[in-house]
Amino acid sequence: MATPTSLPLPAVRFEGGLWGERIERVGNVTLLRQWEALNDRIPGAAPSHAIRNLRIAAGELEGKFAGLCFQDSDVAKWMEAACYRLHVGGEMNRASASGAPPVAPVNSTLAAAVEELVGLYESAQAPDGYLHTYHQLKPGAVRWSNLRDLHELYCAGHFIEAAVAHFDATGSSRLLKVAVKLADLLDHTFGRGEGKRVGVPGHPEVELALVKLARATGDNRYLDLAEYFVTERGQQPSYFVGEAAARGEQAPPVWAYFDEQAYWQAHQPVTEQEEPRGHAVRAMYLYAAMADLAREKGDEAMATSCRRLWDTMVKRHLYIIGGVGADGPGGENFSEAYDLPDDRAYAETCAAIGLVMWSRRMLDLELDARYTSVMERALYNNVLAGLSQDGCHYFYVNPLAVAPKEARRRYDCKMVKTQRVPWFGCACCPPNVARLLSSLGHYAVSRTAAGLALHLFAGMRIAVEEWRIKVVTDYPWTGRVEIFVEAAPAGEFELAMREMNTDWSLNGRALEDKPERGYLRIRRRWQEGDRLTAELPLVIERVRAHPGVTSASGRLALQRGPVVYAVEEVEHGSPLASLGLRRSSELTAEFDTGAWGGVTVLRGEAEREVAGEALYTTESPRREKVPFHAIPYAWWGNRGEGEMRIWIRDYEL
Amino acid sequence: MATPTSLPLPAVRFEGGLWGERIERVGNVTLLRQWEALNDRIPGAAPSHAIRNLRIAAGELEGKFAGLCFQDSDVAKWMEAACYRLHVGGEMNRASASGAPPVAPVNSTLAAAVEELVGLYESAQAPDGYLHTYHQLKPGAVRWSNLRDLHELYCAGHFIEAAVAHFDATGSSRLLKVAVKLADLLDHTFGRGEGKRVGVPGHPEVELALVKLARATGDNRYLDLAEYFVTERGQQPSYFVGEAAARGEQAPPVWAYFDEQAYWQAHQPVTEQEEPRGHAVRAMYLYAAMADLAREKGDEAMATSCRRLWDTMVKRHLYIIGGVGADGPGGENFSEAYDLPDDRAYAETCAAIGLVMWSRRMLDLELDARYTSVMERALYNNVLAGLSQDGCHYFYVNPLAVAPKEARRRYDCKMVKTQRVPWFGCACCPPNVARLLSSLGHYAVSRTAAGLALHLFAGMRIAVEEWRIKVVTDYPWTGRVEIFVEAAPAGEFELAMREMNTDWSLNGRALEDKPERGYLRIRRRWQEGDRLTAELPLVIERVRAHPGVTSASGRLALQRGPVVYAVEEVEHGSPLASLGLRRSSELTAEFDTGAWGGVTVLRGEAEREVAGEALYTTESPRREKVPFHAIPYAWWGNRGEGEMRIWIRDYEL
Repeated sequence: MATPTSLPLPAVRFEGGLWGERIERVGNVTLLRQWEALNDRIPGAAPSHAIRNLRIAAGELEGKFAGLCFQDSDVAKWMEAACYRLHVGGEMNRASASGAPPVAPVNSTLAAAVEELVGLYESAQAPDGYLHTYHQLKPGAVRWSNLRDLHELYCAGHFIEAAVAHFDATGSSRLLKVAVKLADLLDHTFGRGEGKRVGVPGHPEVELALVKLARATGDNRYLDLAEYFVTERGQQPSYFVGEAAARGEQAPPVWAYFDEQAYWQAHQPVTEQEEPRGHAVRAMYLYAAMADLAREKGDEAMATSCRRLWDTMVKRHLYIIGGVGADGPGGENFSEAYDLPDDRAYAETCAAIGLVMWSRRMLDLELDARYTSVMERALYNNVLAGLSQDGCHYFYVNPLAVAPKEARRRYDCKMVKTQRVPWFGCACCPPNVARLLSSLGHYAVSRTAAGLALHLFAGMRIAVEEWRIKVVTDYPWTGRVEIFVEAAPAGEFELAMREMNTDWSLNGRALEDKPERGYLRIRRRWQEGDRLTAELPLVIERVRAHPGVTSASGRLALQRGPVVYAVEEVEHGSPLASLGLRRSSELTAEFDTGAWGGVTVLRGEAEREVAGEALYTTESPRREKVPFHAIPYAWWGNRGEGEMRIWIRDYEL
Repeated sequence: MATPTSLPLPAVRFEGGLWGERIERVGNVTLLRQWEALNDRIPGAAPSHAIRNLRIAAGELEGKFAGLCFQDSDVAKWMEAACYRLHVGGEMNRASASGAPPVAPVNSTLAAAVEELVGLYESAQAPDGYLHTYHQLKPGAVRWSNLRDLHELYCAGHFIEAAVAHFDATGSSRLLKVAVKLADLLDHTFGRGEGKRVGVPGHPEVELALVKLARATGDNRYLDLAEYFVTERGQQPSYFVGEAAARGEQAPPVWAYFDEQAYWQAHQPVTEQEEPRGHAVRAMYLYAAMADLAREKGDEAMATSCRRLWDTMVKRHLYIIGGVGADGPGGENFSEAYDLPDDRAYAETCAAIGLVMWSRRMLDLELDARYTSVMERALYNNVLAGLSQDGCHYFYVNPLAVAPKEARRRYDCKMVKTQRVPWFGCACCPPNVARLLSSLGHYAVSRTAAGLALHLFAGMRIAVEEWRIKVVTDYPWTGRVEIFVEAAPAGEFELAMREMNTDWSLNGRALEDKPERGYLRIRRRWQEGDRLTAELPLVIERVRAHPGVTSASGRLALQRGPVVYAVEEVEHGSPLASLGLRRSSELTAEFDTGAWGGVTVLRGEAEREVAGEALYTTESPRREKVPFHAIPYAWWGNRGEGEMRIWIRDYEL
């Protein structure tokens, strides 16, 4: 097995700033509130039923299964996030190697909930290791009979990830044992070997989990099983076709109305796939697993396929907010090249999270800032938008333009929420945001063959082995970055960080090193007191899209660093569609310390068309000047309901 | 009853030109082909089952009902259209008062089919007058149990209209007798009177038919029943709510997902409705019936409601092609004000036909060119687009922009056909186009209190009573119009025609008369040899939409006279979204005698953005000059599959 590149989670401690504050809120507010949601204790929120299902399966309650077939995964993702919080936050932190100041103590409710869940999982698991409350509780449900739709393996994956996180956080192997028993059942059940059955999951996820389990246990069988699930997909004869025929299915489900097998990325073997297709979250999880396997197995064909899929995604299918999934109403699918509508964007929060997961794994394959910049784009925009400022409300779908009245009425926008909600009947996104942000340290810094690589610029302390590094910055609001080496291991090591088209200095002297693939890789004998500094260029950029992107035609988006901006009705009135900027208009970036934690807003003078009475006119449009005020996209919708849009008119005169 | 304003159909004879040629093709090609379709004899086309259902109900065949609950209406609309053709075309034309040269003889198949249908209807009708093959053949179907969804009254309406057309065309009262028996059943069944049941149809149509039947028979009971159906709608307690409760319906059907009772225009009494809402075709048919009743009953509240609905529709809900119905995927509904997406437009052919019907009836209420100009807009664009050049292929949905690959893939465009098709499973539009075009004379000219009013400019001869008028024009391709009075009744009469912002001459002398509401009303003693002439200004206009119309933001549409233009991929490549015109660019109108019957195209120089490799760039878009070639929208899609769009970029520099 390849050396893990992620540091132990407590080795990276965010301090203040955007990520520090947000992660703290997730730890202290979001996770507790989600526990309430999972226990159906939030009045007015869509009920989860998820903990209740688990209690019934554990024999604590009598009752029937309720909710979606993948409801278990909400609990598992929450459990994983809570364990990350425990791991960083300490009550159950067996060995803090960080040396940093302690974080706020973990709420005892959280710790107790985690402990309780361990017991519930132990009790719920079937004697042979099976664990999926939907199949365990539904009368007549037959396990493994519908791998395509019923998410048994997906839920198994999330449970295994939670168990590994619990093991890392607590050192206790109680939950890991449950996971191993489940994984062993899967290993005995699935594969091409004698006595095994062919099968692939409709929603990839277990593959990622099996790689983690292999790393946690050192047992290569799990890696091999992950490889099996990935490589079986798309083979002929098609497992899904056979399974559907065995069920007597007459027509594919509506969500696969167009893509059919490609909806499940099962239209061809994964190493032959060239264009991202089908359900976007599934695609991201699959490609992330492919990147894992490419590294773990040294599989060059898999790596090549990952790079090719990445390139076509970035060139043709990526929303400017770092989102994917353009065909929303039918099934959150990738659409045709350049088909990126703004008001009907799905851009699911989970898909952006999957993209972050895939990006991070591509960085394990090759240290290249093209992955990091997409990871940043997704994190600062699509992922962050998924969570409200108060930490308790969520977007599942993240359109780039919303007109609330139209969105509520139009059938093709029925997946759009015009405001964040406290929970969803299908609540995959909320705990997914929590687990990503609670483990952001894994994405910010990685171990390389020669030392460490810093991917995200954020106020943080890194403490691993002999390394003690402190990063001071207010990025993405200001460009100043200072990296203080407070201690370093003896010998020559490499610190890598993104170059960002600017000059870096080491101890006040400009570095002459040339970046490689966007990273400066500084190899030297590091010492206490070494200081790397740079002024990252945070220029307000006017971004235009490829002419094939109709929703952006004649329009521009504003971006500063990784942050994409949006305008809202509260400042500009309605409709926003004709609001735009002249080429000559100056914009200034101002830090707004106002109500919502402090963000950099953009101000200037805009123009908008003056609406007349007529629907159609042969008169030239008349424009009026209005004050312009753009906010970071991820912050939209925190001030009541109203219109929002990213792509604004590009007035040429 | 008010005096009918429509002339006998043979009194208006189109001669050549756009309408003449199109009507001839409908008579000689379309109707015959549709007969084949209704008999399920077109290989590859969606089967109709409609004639077969009728044969089964008539006892000619054994079998089960197939198709939609309103399949009967396809036959009835075809019958109505065929009777118009017979009426104008003469084989069964009992008294040609036209004096014009004979039109092509009616195909004997058509005449035989009409005759056969008369017999089938007679045999299919139940002893008590009931006639709806769905309910007559479906085991367990209970008549009048679901007026909201099952279209019994709608089909009754179309049958009655066909019967009136048959009576007008042939003088035979055989089919009219069937209609009277059916209408009497309805009259005995529905109403507020003792022994009657409250009820309203989910799809208005029978109201229009009952007005026609009242005019044909002179029996006011049918007018009163029409009035009952119109005024009962939207009253409390709601008939539909009660009916649904009686059925045990748990939730409204998906197509009423948003509008609920407004989907059926039943959210409030019709005289209180201010904004067009719900299913667009139903709305148009209802408003047309309201206009009929306003006139027949002198109901001023009804007239006021018609005007108000008209105004809000024109100001906020009307596509530039003269189409209505903006929220397609869910149920062809009116959407919010200004929500007029181009690629997801429903703009059903039937809705535009309904709009023509309503417009024409508004002209009966008041001679005002604001109705005529919308009628023209709908006719020359949305309605004509519904029928292919070969007369045998149809659009049901008429988007204003189509990118075939996206349209095929996107779930929210699943109602869009990228090319016209030979038939539909739900085939309301094809026979509706046929009946409208076959009766276009009713829309071109009307009788007024003081004489005649000419609404459409077309090469035609008008022969009614002592009037003999010949109109010579190639409108809409050229603006020259000459109206020759070849004979006129003795005494002072008024000829009214649209003024169109131009000077009219009578016998070479400029007329000084001021137009009233867009019509010149010339009252005089008309004599043989009188000649009215004008040069209608056919200027190429650049039309902009209200800034609330997002799909048109920063864009313009080209219009010349009533004709809206579109660009196609065959001339400009793909994507079309960035193709546009500079303000300074000159356009010329050229008559293209090419392959498809001759149309005026627009040519000039356009610009389009040069596509780079990147999906997003901070570089300013670079544009290149390309030849520009726009065709009338209604002609799009006759040259193979490709992109099309109406709203093109408005390049300001």
